[in-house]
Amino acid sequence: MFIAATETDANLYYACRFLVSDPIAYLEFQGKRCLLLSELELGRARLEARVDQVISLLPHENQIRATGKIPNVTDMLEIYFKEKKIKRFVVPGNFPIAHADRLREKGFRVSFREDPFFPERALKTEEEIQKIAASQAAAEEALSLAADHLRRSRISGGILELGGEPLTAERLRRVLNQFFFEKGYQAQNTIIAGGDQACDPHVRGSGPLPAHSPIVIDIFPRSNDTRYWGDITRTFLRGKASPEISKQYRDVQRAQELGLSLLRDGADGMALHQAVADFFKTEGWETGEQNGKMQGFIHSTGHGIGLDIHEYPKIGRTQSTLKSGNAVTIEPGLYYFGRGGIRLEDTVVVTQNGHRNLTRFPKELVI
Amino acid sequence: MFIAATETDANLYYACRFLVSDPIAYLEFQGKRCLLLSELELGRARLEARVDQVISLLPHENQIRATGKIPNVTDMLEIYFKEKKIKRFVVPGNFPIAHADRLREKGFRVSFREDPFFPERALKTEEEIQKIAASQAAAEEALSLAADHLRRSRISGGILELGGEPLTAERLRRVLNQFFFEKGYQAQNTIIAGGDQACDPHVRGSGPLPAHSPIVIDIFPRSNDTRYWGDITRTFLRGKASPEISKQYRDVQRAQELGLSLLRDGADGMALHQAVADFFKTEGWETGEQNGKMQGFIHSTGHGIGLDIHEYPKIGRTQSTLKSGNAVTIEPGLYYFGRGGIRLEDTVVVTQNGHRNLTRFPKELVI
Repeated sequence: MFIAATETDANLYYACRFLVSDPIAYLEFQGKRCLLLSELELGRARLEARVDQVISLLPHENQIRATGKIPNVTDMLEIYFKEKKIKRFVVPGNFPIAHADRLREKGFRVSFREDPFFPERALKTEEEIQKIAASQAAAEEALSLAADHLRRSRISGGILELGGEPLTAERLRRVLNQFFFEKGYQAQNTIIAGGDQACDPHVRGSGPLPAHSPIVIDIFPRSNDTRYWGDITRTFLRGKASPEISKQYRDVQRAQELGLSLLRDGADGMALHQAVADFFKTEGWETGEQNGKMQGFIHSTGHGIGLDIHEYPKIGRTQSTLKSGNAVTIEPGLYYFGRGGIRLEDTVVVTQNGHRNLTRFPKELVI
Repeated sequence: MFIAATETDANLYYACRFLVSDPIAYLEFQGKRCLLLSELELGRARLEARVDQVISLLPHENQIRATGKIPNVTDMLEIYFKEKKIKRFVVPGNFPIAHADRLREKGFRVSFREDPFFPERALKTEEEIQKIAASQAAAEEALSLAADHLRRSRISGGILELGGEPLTAERLRRVLNQFFFEKGYQAQNTIIAGGDQACDPHVRGSGPLPAHSPIVIDIFPRSNDTRYWGDITRTFLRGKASPEISKQYRDVQRAQELGLSLLRDGADGMALHQAVADFFKTEGWETGEQNGKMQGFIHSTGHGIGLDIHEYPKIGRTQSTLKSGNAVTIEPGLYYFGRGGIRLEDTVVVTQNGHRNLTRFPKELVI
C-alpha cells in the first residue's frame, strides 16, 4: 500500500503510471491493483492509470462528514479496508509515520519492506532501456554543446573567455538549460566545476572557468515526457595539462574500464567498488582526510538509474548483486585540492556476460 | 527531528535554508539547531545552512564499519543520539516509517506532530511576502502574455487561430514556459483549459482553444532563486459570451469579493468557505453529482502559499483560523459540463483587519 504523490515517488509512478502532484492511495490485494483518490483526479486516473480499478474516496468522505467529523485520508481508507476485510499492510520505507501510526491505532498492522520495494524495477524492460538511452543521448548532445564552447574559448589571464567575455559556469549552464528546455528535459543541477570547486563532487560550480585545470561537467537530464533520466560526466582541460593531471585522468579512465569490465549478471556490487578503490590505491592515489578535507576516491563507483536519478542497485560500500537488465552508471573519480578533480561517468545496461554501454561520448582530457 | 531532502521537503528547507537533493538529518535540542549529513555535503552546508552546527556523520559511519557492519543512517544517528543522551523525538507527519520503526526498535520514542509542523511558517515575514509578491508579479506578466495571444487571435470554425495556425493550449503553454525559463521560474503545470476541459480543475488542457467559451488560465510559478510560489487564475472568453456565462462569471467574481471581504486576523477558514458555498447556492448554482460528474463549486475556496504551492492554512472543509501574516489564495469557481468552467484566483496576505492583495491583474471575461 502506498499513500504518495507520483510526481515525487518513483515507486508509485512505476506501479500505476499516473502522474499526480497530490497524494493518492494505491493498493495491491487479491491480485488486483487499485487506486483510491479524490473525485477531482478520478476522470484523468480512469483514462491514464495502468491499474485494475480506480475508486473515488468521495462516498467514504461523505459518510464520515455525515457524522459531523472532518475526515482525514486514513479515516476514509479505513471504511474501504473494512469493507474488503484488509487488516495488514506492507508499505514502502518512506511511508509517512502519520498514516502508519493512525492506521495502527485503528488496529491495522503496518510493516515496511526494505528497499528496493519493487525489486523488478531494477530489471529494465527494453522499452525502459530505450527511454534511458534517449535521455542519455540528450545528455550527450548537451555535452557536445558544452565541449564546443570550451573548444572555442580563448585563454586570458588564467581563465577562459568566449566572445570577449569570461566563460563562466553560469553562462555555460544557461546554454545547456536552454537546450534542455527546448528538447523537453529538466536538468536543473548540471555540474560545471573547475579548480578546487571540482574537488567537492556536490558543488555545481560558479564563476569563470579556469584554464590549465580540469573542468568536471556532469549532466543528468530527466525527460518531461518519459520521466526517465540519463547521466554522463566528462572532464575537460583547456590549455596545458601537467604530467600529474594527465596521469590522474588516465588512471580514472583505467579505473572506469576496470569497473565496466567487471559488470555481468551476478556480479557483486560491493566487490566491484572495492576493486576500483584497490586499483587507485595500487596506482598510488591515496584516499582519506588531508588538511581537514576528504580527498582521493571519495564516492561510490556507481548507481542504478531509471525513474530516479539514484536508485537500486548502488555500486558502493553496500551489499548489491548486479543483474542482467540493471541500468547503472560507472563513475570513478579522483579529487585533490590544489591539483584538481576528475570524474568519468557512463550509463550502461548490465547483460548476461558483460554490459551494453548507452554512452558514446569520447574520453579526452585536453580540448 | 527530520530526515529528508530539502529539495522536496519545504518544512526542512524552511528550518535550515540549505538546498540538497539527498536526505539529511536535522535536529533541534537544547535550543540548538543541528544538521547531520554526509561528508560530501559538509563544506557547502557550513557555508549555506542557517543552523548552529553542521556535523559530519563520517566518524559514526567509520565506527560502525570498523565492526564489520554496513551502516544505515539510523545506526549512525544512534551513536550521536546516545552521546547527547537524546531519547525522544518529535517528527513531522511525513517522516519515513522505516526510520521511525528502526529508531523505535533501538529504544527511542518517536511521535509525530500534526501539520502544520512549524506553525510559524504560516506567518510570513515581510521578506517572505516580498518573495511571494515577486513570484506573483512574474505570474501576472505571464498572464498578460497569454491574454495578449488570445486578444490577437482570430475566430475560425469555432476555434482560435493566430498567425494562420490554431492557437492550442500546448502552443500557449510553450510561450509561457519560455518566458518563465528566461525569468528563472519553474511553471510546469500551467492550466490552459477551455470548454469541458475547464470543468475538471485538474486537467491542464490540450488542443485548439475554443471560441465563445470560457478559457481558464491558472499559472503558479516557483522562483528557482527564492523557492517561493505565486498563484493566479483568470478566465477569458474570446468571442460572444452567452448571458448564462456572463452571469456565471459575475457570480464567481462576487463570490471572490465575498471571500476576500471576510479575511482578517482570527477569521474562521471553514466558515469563510461555507459562506462562499452558501452564496453560490443562494444565487441558484447547484453543487453535486450531475450525469455522473461532480459539478458546481467543487473545490476549496483557497489555500496557504509560500515554499509549498499548497500549505497551511487551507480554506475549505477543514478547521483553520486565519492569522495576520498568512499568505493565501481566494479562488472560487463554478464548473458545468456543456456550459463551461470559470475560476478567479488572487494571492493575498491576511492583515489585522482585512487583507493586502498581491494581485493586480484585472478581471474581465470577454477579451
